[in-house]
Amino acid sequence: MLSKNQAKTLRALHRKKARREQQQFLVEGEKVVAELLASNWSVQALYATPTFTAQYAGLIQQSGVSITECSAAELTSVSTLVSNDAALAVVNCPAVADNNSPSADKWVLALDDINDPGNLGSLLRIADWYGIRRIVCSPQTTELYNPKVIAASKGSFLRVQVDYQPLDAFFDALPANTAVLGAYLDGESIHAFRPQQRGGILLLGSEAHGISSALAARVTQRITIPAFGAAESLNVAVAAAVLCDNLRRIES
Amino acid sequence: MLSKNQAKTLRALHRKKARREQQQFLVEGEKVVAELLASNWSVQALYATPTFTAQYAGLIQQSGVSITECSAAELTSVSTLVSNDAALAVVNCPAVADNNSPSADKWVLALDDINDPGNLGSLLRIADWYGIRRIVCSPQTTELYNPKVIAASKGSFLRVQVDYQPLDAFFDALPANTAVLGAYLDGESIHAFRPQQRGGILLLGSEAHGISSALAARVTQRITIPAFGAAESLNVAVAAAVLCDNLRRIES
Repeated sequence: MLSKNQAKTLRALHRKKARREQQQFLVEGEKVVAELLASNWSVQALYATPTFTAQYAGLIQQSGVSITECSAAELTSVSTLVSNDAALAVVNCPAVADNNSPSADKWVLALDDINDPGNLGSLLRIADWYGIRRIVCSPQTTELYNPKVIAASKGSFLRVQVDYQPLDAFFDALPANTAVLGAYLDGESIHAFRPQQRGGILLLGSEAHGISSALAARVTQRITIPAFGAAESLNVAVAAAVLCDNLRRIES
Repeated sequence: MLSKNQAKTLRALHRKKARREQQQFLVEGEKVVAELLASNWSVQALYATPTFTAQYAGLIQQSGVSITECSAAELTSVSTLVSNDAALAVVNCPAVADNNSPSADKWVLALDDINDPGNLGSLLRIADWYGIRRIVCSPQTTELYNPKVIAASKGSFLRVQVDYQPLDAFFDALPANTAVLGAYLDGESIHAFRPQQRGGILLLGSEAHGISSALAARVTQRITIPAFGAAESLNVAVAAAVLCDNLRRIES
């Protein structure tokens, strides 16, 4: 059963301020919590139904996490998700790796003020699908540990490193010949694009304003997804997937 | 000013039952309402702020629509969107065109029980970007006129024809040699795929269950987006965009 104190602590973690102060966040849902327990992430506490604890007994024992059994109704009352989640975990935020120079042949996503948590979560999932291990976010990009981001990432937050820093500083620290592809509506068609080297940075702008003018000078190549109809634009995560797919297709 | 009756009518259109009975739906937001007024769709009523009516006076006059001026607060109180929408329109559902045989060289999306309104709206926007003019939905697919679908489509509902019918009947009526590409996790890589003809059907399954086994026999080619990382899947709209992009890239 959930104590009043536990419920209060869990509800507090719906707020950014509490996540920041406690350096903890919530992971909700049966499948992703099971994936979390199998990972080497530091789980502070697990809240789960008897059904969940029976099904994943081995995993729970291995992880050594402290567990509180509770009903599905209790979990729902402290969860941000609407469905009957079978499990919920409090996770310690990992230390951010000091990793300012990406390997020469790897792709990194750079996000300039992505605003919507669903979009950031989708971008993690897409990066994970395309084998991109790192996302660099401008400080104004929505917070990684928002439960909506974690939910939309479908477990990919476990595999993609995300760090926040002024993008100017990030670009300053890159090797001089790094390719920086910027997603625009009026660049070179990604269907015709032939990269001169493997890997680089794919820079994506905010939903409302695109890439900020302050960062435009960092872009070595403006690229565009060719349109065949009348829609004005694509969602930023959808666009990122199409661009990543083209880059992987070209390279392989 | 909004009358009580008007407010009641508008709020009722948030519900599927009322939309079905009245054969009307809501379009919300400045930009998309302006786009709507410029189209040849049948608008039953327009509710807008004085700012909107001043800015789009020409468009409103041309459309001949009856207009009720109201405050942003009044609009928000009857809108499903949270932001300060400057305009809201009640639109008459168009008659569904009898169009069972797509032109031979065109692409059509077929949706097998897509559940999430945001996904359906995204699929409309993506179809519109890639010049796909028609989407056929199984009867269980989420309703087109849900305000969340309309919002996510970003105006593309004006340009993409959507109809609902049992997909078995749809496939029965197709010419015998029509290509039916089915999106699976274990098909041929879309990067290696070389179609034998232009156009066909791209069949996408539900978020939870993929393409139903009853429809599998209709698929002439199982296709897959190659993965380069560890994510288990992509969101269905994201996958549709990547597949459409590859098909357009191959054809052009």
